[in-house]
Amino acid sequence: MQKFSKLLKGLVKPVYAHCDLFCGVYDPAQARIEAQSVLNAVKRYQDTDDEVLRQRAIIIKEQRAELVKHHLWVLWTDYFKPPHVEQFPELHDLFWRATKAAGDTKKSVELKDAEKLISLIDEIGELFAKTKDGYDYAAVVKNLSV
Amino acid sequence: MQKFSKLLKGLVKPVYAHCDLFCGVYDPAQARIEAQSVLNAVKRYQDTDDEVLRQRAIIIKEQRAELVKHHLWVLWTDYFKPPHVEQFPELHDLFWRATKAAGDTKKSVELKDAEKLISLIDEIGELFAKTKDGYDYAAVVKNLSV
Amino acid sequence: MQKFSKLLKGLVKPVYAHCDLFCGVYDPAQARIEAQSVLNAVKRYQDTDDEVLRQRAIIIKEQRAELVKHHLWVLWTDYFKPPHVEQFPELHDLFWRATKAAGDTKKSVELKDAEKLISLIDEIGELFAKTKDGYDYAAVVKNLSV
Amino acid sequence: MQKFSKLLKGLVKPVYAHCDLFCGVYDPAQARIEAQSVLNAVKRYQDTDDEVLRQRAIIIKEQRAELVKHHLWVLWTDYFKPPHVEQFPELHDLFWRATKAAGDTKKSVELKDAEKLISLIDEIGELFAKTKDGYDYAAVVKNLSV
Amino acid sequence: MQKFSKLLKGLVKPVYAHCDLFCGVYDPAQARIEAQSVLNAVKRYQDTDDEVLRQRAIIIKEQRAELVKHHLWVLWTDYFKPPHVEQFPELHDLFWRATKAAGDTKKSVELKDAEKLISLIDEIGELFAKTKDGYDYAAVVKNLSV
Amino acid sequence: MQKFSKLLKGLVKPVYAHCDLFCGVYDPAQARIEAQSVLNAVKRYQDTDDEVLRQRAIIIKEQRAELVKHHLWVLWTDYFKPPHVEQFPELHDLFWRATKAAGDTKKSVELKDAEKLISLIDEIGELFAKTKDGYDYAAVVKNLSV
Repeated sequence: MQKFSKLLKGLVKPVYAHCDLFCGVYDPAQARIEAQSVLNAVKRYQDTDDEVLRQRAIIIKEQRAELVKHHLWVLWTDYFKPPHVEQFPELHDLFWRATKAAGDTKKSVELKDAEKLISLIDEIGELFAKTKDGYDYAAVVKNLSV
Repeated sequence: MQKFSKLLKGLVKPVYAHCDLFCGVYDPAQARIEAQSVLNAVKRYQDTDDEVLRQRAIIIKEQRAELVKHHLWVLWTDYFKPPHVEQFPELHDLFWRATKAAGDTKKSVELKDAEKLISLIDEIGELFAKTKDGYDYAAVVKNLSV
Repeated sequence: MQKFSKLLKGLVKPVYAHCDLFCGVYDPAQARIEAQSVLNAVKRYQDTDDEVLRQRAIIIKEQRAELVKHHLWVLWTDYFKPPHVEQFPELHDLFWRATKAAGDTKKSVELKDAEKLISLIDEIGELFAKTKDGYDYAAVVKNLSV
Repeated sequence: MQKFSKLLKGLVKPVYAHCDLFCGVYDPAQARIEAQSVLNAVKRYQDTDDEVLRQRAIIIKEQRAELVKHHLWVLWTDYFKPPHVEQFPELHDLFWRATKAAGDTKKSVELKDAEKLISLIDEIGELFAKTKDGYDYAAVVKNLSV
Repeated sequence: MQKFSKLLKGLVKPVYAHCDLFCGVYDPAQARIEAQSVLNAVKRYQDTDDEVLRQRAIIIKEQRAELVKHHLWVLWTDYFKPPHVEQFPELHDLFWRATKAAGDTKKSVELKDAEKLISLIDEIGELFAKTKDGYDYAAVVKNLSV
Repeated sequence: MQKFSKLLKGLVKPVYAHCDLFCGVYDPAQARIEAQSVLNAVKRYQDTDDEVLRQRAIIIKEQRAELVKHHLWVLWTDYFKPPHVEQFPELHDLFWRATKAAGDTKKSVELKDAEKLISLIDEIGELFAKTKDGYDYAAVVKNLSV
């Protein structure tokens, strides 16, 4: 795969040449950080009986899940290009399921829903890394786990 | 197609039964209205030499195009369900091209780019209408043209 | 009325000639769509005993009612012009009551408050249609009812 | 007028008794502060030939004028009650002209447009003071002039 | 102190000469107004048993406390300059404690937490007044108490 | 330092025990990513003569620099605790200079101003890493450089 990725990169360059990106800064860390907040909000909800804290967990989860969706949508629409879709035919479906999973975390206070979201973002992060030599997605995850 | 749509609707109902939608209000008119603003901002830009008005056209086009993207993303992720994708295999690609076209209008002051965006939203609007008996997308377009 | 409207339009044109509008895209559909979300959020609240879903209904109703207010305010300040106020002397009061009704839906989980809001927006929609030949407000309402 | 105001206050109290306000904190200072920013942005625009600074003045003026509109709309819809409109029949028209004036400052880089906006807000501020014993609007203006 | 303030002002002017401020409009009233809303939201929460009203109090307190933080941060970063820090060595710590206190009001429904926030903002307001001849912070507080 | 950091962590734990943080997710990567966008926007501005692209660079730089400020402010107020300030007496001043540097990038189209901002954020990132065993700030920077 790595080799194919490099091959593709060579082919893609000319496509990028007229650069329709603006600033070119994309990092799945943004979605992953907010998803971690969603997970922690669920944990806080489950760990307490305090009514106010629980309501705040719902409010904040709602906001953070929306940010997750936004960051994923931006990545999907702005970063990825047609050659990526040829290389990763599952790309659209993966983003669709991930943004739907983000929506599901708004409706739920179950750990498994937040964990499913994180797992899908991690799949996107790994895929992103394959399109960018030297990008280390594992480091993003590790930084959020310490 | 109409018949297939009805058939699908029967099949889809059970999927909706545990309703993961929240309020269920979706209308492609939202994206279409903002796209019309993008088009008009381009026209205003082209029709004037006034420096301040031109700069405001750029600012407002930027904001409206972002709203177009947002409304399209919400439609894609929240309204459409797996059976729709089976029925319309082009769904993902259509939304991807439409949101990319919205991004392109930020970078451009050409009428053709804004018109391309509107044309893609209209394609989405027609597709949306096929999934919802009685929804009249042509009325949305007509209301924006008077 | 139709005739008077046409007469006024002729008179108004010169007023529009130095056009202080920016993009000129206004559509009461925007407020109506958000108001429908408010109504549906109230319905969801009433139909469930689930504590989390009820809290989400409150949160989302709060946001959507604010969007209703915003869209109505924009319409009132930006779309309507002095000749409209001469033609429709109740204009200011109608918008005042409608935005207040939107505020009331934040404070309430009663269907009748959401329905009152929608009814006032529909009054505004009909009035708007009278100022714009060919605009079909009934189509907006119908699209939201299917 | 002062006497009438007191009389009205006595009459209004029962109306407030079932208090449909939420937190009851309203202060025209919010709109006045943002309008001062609009004025200063215009001054900065006029005082410089620097292209970047001029563009930033346009951007910031756009944002601040929008905030002026928002604060005025909130005051109009949420603070004022039917008895106020009876006492001040010009209330609706005054707010309409003030929010339109805020919109006009977006389109203009003329001092006179920003000054007209401030003058209308000051009219609103004085009117607000008449409805609230002890509120000193002159102090708001003075604080912004030092 | 007044005298030292004037002395400093003379010294500071040359620093301002290349003015890195944009519009130069800063007023602690903005943070104080939102903090009053936080306090009133807490009062409303404590005064009622209505579940919906209590949830709205939590939601609105969350938003208003965030606005308090934002206005304080802007004041700290944008208004104050190095000579002010020399004059008021406690400046950084005061803003840190005030913004933390704003965060604490999100987590609490206790009057004392909202009152502590207001007390810290009043300290900032008094300090601000010392840097600006003629600014009357007491008038801001008085306007919010009537 | 590392040893002192560990010592402090032991001492700090009891302070954290009544945890006033909500979700506990903080990552300087958020500010760093937006600062990279600021830098790239400046580069794009410098590399082109296209008037529209230059105006968009100004608009986007304005927004991204604001996000940098926001993420830094949140880190300063919400993540850091009194024991951190004892350990790092320069903390307040460092954040003050960094947020001021972010403000400076709004006013400038010079590479050196964007680079200064990034350099200050990197200082904060390294300091943050000292308070969190296992956090790898260098990985954040590396991911943004590929």
